[in-house]
Amino acid sequence: MSGNTFGKIFKITELDRRKPGQSDITTQRKEDDAVEILSGVFEGKTLGTPIGMIIYNKDQKSKDYSNIKDVFRPNHADITYQAKYGHRDYRGGGRASARETANWVAAGAIAKKILKNEGVSVNGFVSEIGKVKADSINHKNINNKYFFSDESKLSELDSMFKDLIEEGNSVGAKLGVIVKNCPVGLGDPVFEKLDANLAKAIMTINAVKSVSIGNADDLLSLKGSEARDEITESGFTSNNSGGILGGISNGDDISLSFIIKPTSSIKTKGKTVNKEGNEVDIEVTGRHDPCVGIRAVPIAEAMVSLVLVDHLLINKAQCADVEQNLPFSE
Amino acid sequence: MSGNTFGKIFKITELDRRKPGQSDITTQRKEDDAVEILSGVFEGKTLGTPIGMIIYNKDQKSKDYSNIKDVFRPNHADITYQAKYGHRDYRGGGRASARETANWVAAGAIAKKILKNEGVSVNGFVSEIGKVKADSINHKNINNKYFFSDESKLSELDSMFKDLIEEGNSVGAKLGVIVKNCPVGLGDPVFEKLDANLAKAIMTINAVKSVSIGNADDLLSLKGSEARDEITESGFTSNNSGGILGGISNGDDISLSFIIKPTSSIKTKGKTVNKEGNEVDIEVTGRHDPCVGIRAVPIAEAMVSLVLVDHLLINKAQCADVEQNLPFSE
Amino acid sequence: MSGNTFGKIFKITELDRRKPGQSDITTQRKEDDAVEILSGVFEGKTLGTPIGMIIYNKDQKSKDYSNIKDVFRPNHADITYQAKYGHRDYRGGGRASARETANWVAAGAIAKKILKNEGVSVNGFVSEIGKVKADSINHKNINNKYFFSDESKLSELDSMFKDLIEEGNSVGAKLGVIVKNCPVGLGDPVFEKLDANLAKAIMTINAVKSVSIGNADDLLSLKGSEARDEITESGFTSNNSGGILGGISNGDDISLSFIIKPTSSIKTKGKTVNKEGNEVDIEVTGRHDPCVGIRAVPIAEAMVSLVLVDHLLINKAQCADVEQNLPFSE
Amino acid sequence: MSGNTFGKIFKITELDRRKPGQSDITTQRKEDDAVEILSGVFEGKTLGTPIGMIIYNKDQKSKDYSNIKDVFRPNHADITYQAKYGHRDYRGGGRASARETANWVAAGAIAKKILKNEGVSVNGFVSEIGKVKADSINHKNINNKYFFSDESKLSELDSMFKDLIEEGNSVGAKLGVIVKNCPVGLGDPVFEKLDANLAKAIMTINAVKSVSIGNADDLLSLKGSEARDEITESGFTSNNSGGILGGISNGDDISLSFIIKPTSSIKTKGKTVNKEGNEVDIEVTGRHDPCVGIRAVPIAEAMVSLVLVDHLLINKAQCADVEQNLPFSE
Repeated sequence: MSGNTFGKIFKITELDRRKPGQSDITTQRKEDDAVEILSGVFEGKTLGTPIGMIIYNKDQKSKDYSNIKDVFRPNHADITYQAKYGHRDYRGGGRASARETANWVAAGAIAKKILKNEGVSVNGFVSEIGKVKADSINHKNINNKYFFSDESKLSELDSMFKDLIEEGNSVGAKLGVIVKNCPVGLGDPVFEKLDANLAKAIMTINAVKSVSIGNADDLLSLKGSEARDEITESGFTSNNSGGILGGISNGDDISLSFIIKPTSSIKTKGKTVNKEGNEVDIEVTGRHDPCVGIRAVPIAEAMVSLVLVDHLLINKAQCADVEQNLPFSE
Repeated sequence: MSGNTFGKIFKITELDRRKPGQSDITTQRKEDDAVEILSGVFEGKTLGTPIGMIIYNKDQKSKDYSNIKDVFRPNHADITYQAKYGHRDYRGGGRASARETANWVAAGAIAKKILKNEGVSVNGFVSEIGKVKADSINHKNINNKYFFSDESKLSELDSMFKDLIEEGNSVGAKLGVIVKNCPVGLGDPVFEKLDANLAKAIMTINAVKSVSIGNADDLLSLKGSEARDEITESGFTSNNSGGILGGISNGDDISLSFIIKPTSSIKTKGKTVNKEGNEVDIEVTGRHDPCVGIRAVPIAEAMVSLVLVDHLLINKAQCADVEQNLPFSE
Repeated sequence: MSGNTFGKIFKITELDRRKPGQSDITTQRKEDDAVEILSGVFEGKTLGTPIGMIIYNKDQKSKDYSNIKDVFRPNHADITYQAKYGHRDYRGGGRASARETANWVAAGAIAKKILKNEGVSVNGFVSEIGKVKADSINHKNINNKYFFSDESKLSELDSMFKDLIEEGNSVGAKLGVIVKNCPVGLGDPVFEKLDANLAKAIMTINAVKSVSIGNADDLLSLKGSEARDEITESGFTSNNSGGILGGISNGDDISLSFIIKPTSSIKTKGKTVNKEGNEVDIEVTGRHDPCVGIRAVPIAEAMVSLVLVDHLLINKAQCADVEQNLPFSE
Repeated sequence: MSGNTFGKIFKITELDRRKPGQSDITTQRKEDDAVEILSGVFEGKTLGTPIGMIIYNKDQKSKDYSNIKDVFRPNHADITYQAKYGHRDYRGGGRASARETANWVAAGAIAKKILKNEGVSVNGFVSEIGKVKADSINHKNINNKYFFSDESKLSELDSMFKDLIEEGNSVGAKLGVIVKNCPVGLGDPVFEKLDANLAKAIMTINAVKSVSIGNADDLLSLKGSEARDEITESGFTSNNSGGILGGISNGDDISLSFIIKPTSSIKTKGKTVNKEGNEVDIEVTGRHDPCVGIRAVPIAEAMVSLVLVDHLLINKAQCADVEQNLPFSE
């Protein structure tokens, strides 16, 4: 009966990239982040039935939440959960906790395996942190603690984070994801456009406030004759469209970017109200990331991978009998 | 039997705002854009069953499409539809035609009626066209042909459009939508966040490449202590979050913005390939809007309204028994 | 540009089998039942986008509904629609009208074409009408006005219907559908079992009160050793399971049966109440089928075909890379 | 922080009714069937977010499945899972195991709590086992090991089961569920009829081959004038329709019945094939229920309860503003 995965504990590399406690600029909460596969895999292969996975919170039970129990942290879901449901789990923000994203990364790790089989790669990176902006984009083999795409800015970032930690403050970030070798034909003309579903998935990530496909930043300064990606026998001459036309992948690189707001849980004292509506000062203690955006790299890769795999399977249902080719010479 | 709406032809004001042929800067195609209600309404009231509506294309049959029949217009869905399905309707771009959006505006007109009953207003506007940027935002009673939120820039726009038409070129635009008086509690914590669904709906609009919730443009220059919307007894002190916290509306104004690429169908000659993969020059004749973004104002209002009504009904299913209040004094 | 189907009017053979006014035992309402294809088909082929179709009611406008306007016909949806929505379209029963099923038959005609391409046939028949029971099942080439599977009983049926029409009364019926050559592998283990979806589809047909898969009638008199379909090298030795095991098609004939209640709209006077709750006598005038079950044959074939095509496409998404074979010698 | 349910182990009474090993006529496999709530409940109340629950298989690991590893048990999902996916978990039948239904019963226990709050009761019972038929229906407080609705037949059943166990054989069963005090208005006119969804849910239960709403058994012998449920000032005069008209609950008792095939896993030797397609004899050892139908009573109650709660919530979204009344005097 060897080879069975039920009940075994796995370490998923992707989870290690997401998890806190990895450096001085991310939360010091120690989470083991090992995933247990409960169902759907047998003798090393998927069964076709749903794959159930569980990641236990090992480090949570003993915490003291009395300071935030009856108080709404500014720019958090505390106040909306309470208003919507009349009841909330104040410990760690309940479902609004960044802990939730560990699930997505675990599921995304499976999606990435499927995509790898099809030759598709999905790579994320950070291109701006606060006012520090990358001059060049490197979307592969990023091996620095900021996932920053321009290594020439690392010491500038070190210095900025030193100040932020001292100050008890935080900054926002801009991130990107690039998909290489995506097959043509993923997405639908009206109701399930690939870009619409990518936008939904990215906007689902905690603290994301903006998402763009392709070269959106330049579309107000370019004219139509410059922005349209002309076509030659060997392919598109540019990729302002970010690899998607009319909601459907065009075989070119899919590129997207998104903006994450500054961490709201900071040591700097701020104004808020409690459940009774009385004003109180709040100062969120404990260690928090001065920039939550950094840890969003593996999360965004997971979300993009999940959307792509969904569309890959849907495209098989729709067009299994069509040879999906572009009219380009190799 | 008077009062029955079946088979009656209606003029929907919203459709008039969207339709082409209204000024010298929008397409001169004459469409009547009258909607016929087929089902779901009886004696002036909805029946609870689906409302079927139809808008016939009166002006379409006699067109000559031979010039685009076998050629892929750059930055259009022509090439992706052909690659995905191996077959496409080249006339007017098929389902990728902006004509598709008339349906959404018709459906959105009903959604807006429901929202109006609840006291909610949804207003769109244009804030940037090409390099011309509004200095002030007015989101109500905009009565200029550009739906532009800053009337001091109208003559600058006139002059820009005169040049664009002469040149046979086009520009992109940035638009905004503001929702006033949205009830607290719309949206879900994880799978159907309100902002995620708004992003999907807006990104579904033809030519949209970027969507932001709240004050995303400033999130890279603000620190956490500045960006978090603090709370007092009378409400939030700012609204960088755009009225949504943790995927759920917080009762403040919902604000979003989005960027539309420059019209791809322009008179300026460009390179493309035909179905056989041979390079050809293309020049899209006929009148086309030099900025498709302008007509997107009623479309975006419709999409936002449809998302809000969906969530309004879902929220009734979820929380009909909860008094959904914020802890603010009036 | 000939060959385009938009706006053309089609006669669908399946609709002729369903429509009323065909013999002395079905309603004399004359409906043309021609379908107009609005979208999704171009130059004789589907486009991959949704196929819109419309069937207009030609014969409906002038009717007088004053006798049923404020009265609830017994065993009809009149009373539940009114109670649920507080408002209803009393003309012809609104969406509860058997007219609704014309849509399903039109959609099912397309599903049948897809199935035919895969070599799958779907044939319905009537096996019991009131107390007259077929001694033999013929599920192909049934060419009698009752769609009855045993032609030796036709004169008995003629005589029964003569009496029913004189009496102004009605009877129920039992019908069957047999699917030949269904591929193995359609259906899911838990959430979308093929038999569960067939049961839902059949129970959706107006007046159906019972649905069975395979040889359900005998399962209380057979023991496990008799009822289990044993397996040999050349296939299953019997087919009590009706071609589905564990929610998934096993390649054998799919057989199902269902019971339709007697027509509720009959001339025989009955008791009911009006909107004010006062008791009134009701006698539904006009011609009504003395057995609505007969016309359900093409409707059931359509519903079964739609479910099968859905599962065929889903199975491609799930298992496109699996060779789905049974271990039988040919 | 007392009162928190996370990580606590619960005993659900409903699970005890379903679980095996309770008497000499049900499987002797010992399962603890305690459920652990993982999420969605806090301080004794639901949070509005999904409720995650887990039931571990305590008794499974050490079993020897070598005899069924490469052989397809007749009338089981073994052969269809293998054909569909090319890979299967042979241990206990994988997702086809009756163990799967423990999940549904756990979820149904929550649904039943919600229904109880609304005054709705859901009670199941067995009315036929093999050739033994109940003469009277008692759907409450059934306290015998067969859940049999007619206690006068218990000794007859004892004797039948004694013989079946000796013989190593099995029989089928007919069961019923009655819902009392269901609110009027649940269900949709076309796409999500209440009876259609009940049929799907019941047909999803392992081994169910037939499902009926109301008095389906008599609909072939009754005429329309007898079968229609006439209406008086105090309500319906009969309930052949089983509490549902036009897909919507009418406020009367909802009654349904269904047939479960004889247990396929029996000691009596039978013919089958192995993965290579070679014929082998099979004899399923271990203890198996001689009638799996008996344990389906709590499962069916759970499935019906889940469907009703879904429709209850949907009805709030649809008709929160309608006073849903029937025109009857009290």
